Amino acid sequence: MKLATYHDGSSDGQLWVVSRDLQRAVPAVGIVRTMLEAVEEWDLVLPALTALYDRLNVSQEAFAVPFEPKRCLAPLPRAPQWLDASAFLNHGRLMDKAFDNPPNLDFETIPLVYQGASDDFRGPVADIEFPDDSLGIDMEGEFGVILSNVPMGTSADAAPSHVRLLVQINDWSLRALGPREMRAGFGFLQAKPSTAFAPVAVTPDEIASHWQDCRVGLPLHVEINGREVGRANGGEMHFSFAEIIAHCARTRMLTAGTIIGSGTVSNADRAAGSSCISEIRVIELLDRGVAETPFLTWGDRVRMEARLPDGTAPFGVIDQRVARG
Amino acid sequence: MKLATYHDGSSDGQLWVVSRDLQRAVPAVGIVRTMLEAVEEWDLVLPALTALYDRLNVSQEAFAVPFEPKRCLAPLPRAPQWLDASAFLNHGRLMDKAFDNPPNLDFETIPLVYQGASDDFRGPVADIEFPDDSLGIDMEGEFGVILSNVPMGTSADAAPSHVRLLVQINDWSLRALGPREMRAGFGFLQAKPSTAFAPVAVTPDEIASHWQDCRVGLPLHVEINGREVGRANGGEMHFSFAEIIAHCARTRMLTAGTIIGSGTVSNADRAAGSSCISEIRVIELLDRGVAETPFLTWGDRVRMEARLPDGTAPFGVIDQRVARG
Repeated sequence: MKLATYHDGSSDGQLWVVSRDLQRAVPAVGIVRTMLEAVEEWDLVLPALTALYDRLNVSQEAFAVPFEPKRCLAPLPRAPQWLDASAFLNHGRLMDKAFDNPPNLDFETIPLVYQGASDDFRGPVADIEFPDDSLGIDMEGEFGVILSNVPMGTSADAAPSHVRLLVQINDWSLRALGPREMRAGFGFLQAKPSTAFAPVAVTPDEIASHWQDCRVGLPLHVEINGREVGRANGGEMHFSFAEIIAHCARTRMLTAGTIIGSGTVSNADRAAGSSCISEIRVIELLDRGVAETPFLTWGDRVRMEARLPDGTAPFGVIDQRVARG
Repeated sequence: MKLATYHDGSSDGQLWVVSRDLQRAVPAVGIVRTMLEAVEEWDLVLPALTALYDRLNVSQEAFAVPFEPKRCLAPLPRAPQWLDASAFLNHGRLMDKAFDNPPNLDFETIPLVYQGASDDFRGPVADIEFPDDSLGIDMEGEFGVILSNVPMGTSADAAPSHVRLLVQINDWSLRALGPREMRAGFGFLQAKPSTAFAPVAVTPDEIASHWQDCRVGLPLHVEINGREVGRANGGEMHFSFAEIIAHCARTRMLTAGTIIGSGTVSNADRAAGSSCISEIRVIELLDRGVAETPFLTWGDRVRMEARLPDGTAPFGVIDQRVARG
């Protein structure tokens, strides 16, 4: 099933069901008002949402209208919690070089996860505002999962059953501010402005066998101003979402609607390119002695879409323009 | 005005207005359903809430019943965002010694703030569960502010007008997990389980002249198992809430209902005691060469109340028991 949240003036928006081919959509009228309520009451609302989705896919839903990504907010415009990992070790190693981080002895055994702001997520095609283009405006292409209630102490074995929906994410970052915040030890705050999401959240069956070992095994195509810079595959996550969930739930419960991010999708194979500019720059620095690719500035566009083998984009497309805030 | 959130089975609870002397309460029926909605629609609902509060204080509210802190959730049982500072430099200096942190050159000029979990705040007298009592279970007595929408780039001068309500907080912490998370650079996650709140959130006028320079100038009395260990004054914050708000809003907006914490209330005067056990232990270590006060274990009780000069507790009392999760 594919679900989207349309803008309606409220903080949480309204839930729409979207056809598998992203051509048609219908509001979840009479079933459930918002994505958050759907996740909270999943077992209760799933049959009716599924029936609506099935009718939509066979063009038998009389109230269907064309799907409009422009009307989409993030699937959860505000979520109870946003925990973003750095689960691709290739990305972690490159960033450690870029930031000149001290050695992390637990790098391969304990997931790195930061708690991010979840009060102001952005939709797929909205301009994204920053106060200053000298702060190293960068993107981070990621995958994520939206969870049901996860009790404290949930194991990695039990964690997959709590995954309700998959999402595709651009975790906007300000690189000039990250290293100082890391060194201070309290984690990212100014370095992590509002995060953006592709228009639809999907149940894992929508990507079939590409949901493997609690990882999204799809290439994430990333373009800057129309030029593709990355097509790294999400299957190369070192820690699975299940392991990250267990890590996060060790000393707390995670309430329904919590979103867990993979961190920047990154592959050891250089041919896969990069899902963020910092990686591109550190590779340039290592290979040629100088980082040439600039960070983003006003008017630059970033496009991201995961692709199935048939070329379709199961989450739709993130296509945003950097704007002066 | 004093406001509380009563448990009603929903995630956000229901809003009640509480009399100034914490003796009587009345539901905000017909005005606004939840604390979050009240903060979001503050200007719209304030006149009716104020009228109800005034009737309650002069015992002319027919629907008033005795106030029951046991029915209270946290004022915001889940908030859009929770940003907790470490604004008392005396605490920061002692914790740097306790954790053997590397020097922070910006210590006196840039506030340290971590993004915490805001999906599962706890009420004032609910047992607080942890998975393991070998993790260094500790408290942190704090003050906090609940904000209206704060635009990106709001200055410290403009920030005070965004403070809607003041709260009193116990930021439960697991000290065995903090140093590793600080060193890893992504901030606290496992080290910061659910945070607890005193029963009532109050408008700044409730503490009159003790709301000074965007600081809560009241002593916070902290007891462990009936023994007072701290009475540090919140007026000694190095960074004001206004400065912390401006720091947090530099690259993002803060949506209505965001809570900003002061960090552990701590005074340079040793006679004021401590609002957390880690401070007590590091002082013991410095003075006597050995940290004697143990962290908390199952059944231990922690009580916290700020007091006005007349001895009353404007936020009510946090009184929780540590329980096995």
